Amino acid sequence: MMSHSNRPPHPALRIRIVFGKDGMIGPGKAELLERIDRCGSIAAAGREMNMSYKRAWELIGTLNSMFRDPVVESTRGGPGGGGAVLTDTGQQVLALYRAFEAQCTNAGAQQLDSLHAMLSDRDVQDE
Amino acid sequence: MMSHSNRPPHPALRIRIVFGKDGMIGPGKAELLERIDRCGSIAAAGREMNMSYKRAWELIGTLNSMFRDPVVESTRGGPGGGGAVLTDTGQQVLALYRAFEAQCTNAGAQQLDSLHAMLSDRDVQDE
Repeated sequence: MMSHSNRPPHPALRIRIVFGKDGMIGPGKAELLERIDRCGSIAAAGREMNMSYKRAWELIGTLNSMFRDPVVESTRGGPGGGGAVLTDTGQQVLALYRAFEAQCTNAGAQQLDSLHAMLSDRDVQDE
Repeated sequence: MMSHSNRPPHPALRIRIVFGKDGMIGPGKAELLERIDRCGSIAAAGREMNMSYKRAWELIGTLNSMFRDPVVESTRGGPGGGGAVLTDTGQQVLALYRAFEAQCTNAGAQQLDSLHAMLSDRDVQDE
């Protein structure tokens, strides 16, 4: 869109919702859930994000214990991995997080535009 | 408030507004600006946040070059530090960031409540 302009690109949001000192959901976990939903495997979803197998499992473990019901159900397999699916809870958590992001973007559009207008002109490109 | 309940505390937000690959404002920079405004010194504001002198100056340098006008003006002093004040731009940036946070909390209250209600009961304390 604006790739060849020297105006900075429009702002993107990275929102972490923090529940006390342990529970948190942010852009990384949301993306991981989305990719698991799409590719049916925790390991494959993590690989797509350049995340180690161990790290991807840790994040899902955290989410599974954070909510009353698990967000992902998996059949743990051999080295090739087993399958994994988002539960109804997982689908809801993901949808609520994305809806929250959208609400922020809409409700705060005026503030975002004002901040954007105050940026210095630089030779930057959209990503 | 709910300190002795076993319900998780109400969610807090940590929002980063990302302008392209360089510019970003989030909770840390906002808090630093607020503390500079209150204590009139970059070094002292950084210390209150357990941030090194170097780090605090770097963050302010980043903000100053990110916006068309500087957000903080300082009289660089000796080891004791000089003074620093938020410019009109700095006041505006801070106010817009805080207003954006408030808009998100209001507009997304329903999503936050729904996520909160899905958390597992744990023995956590409000912070």
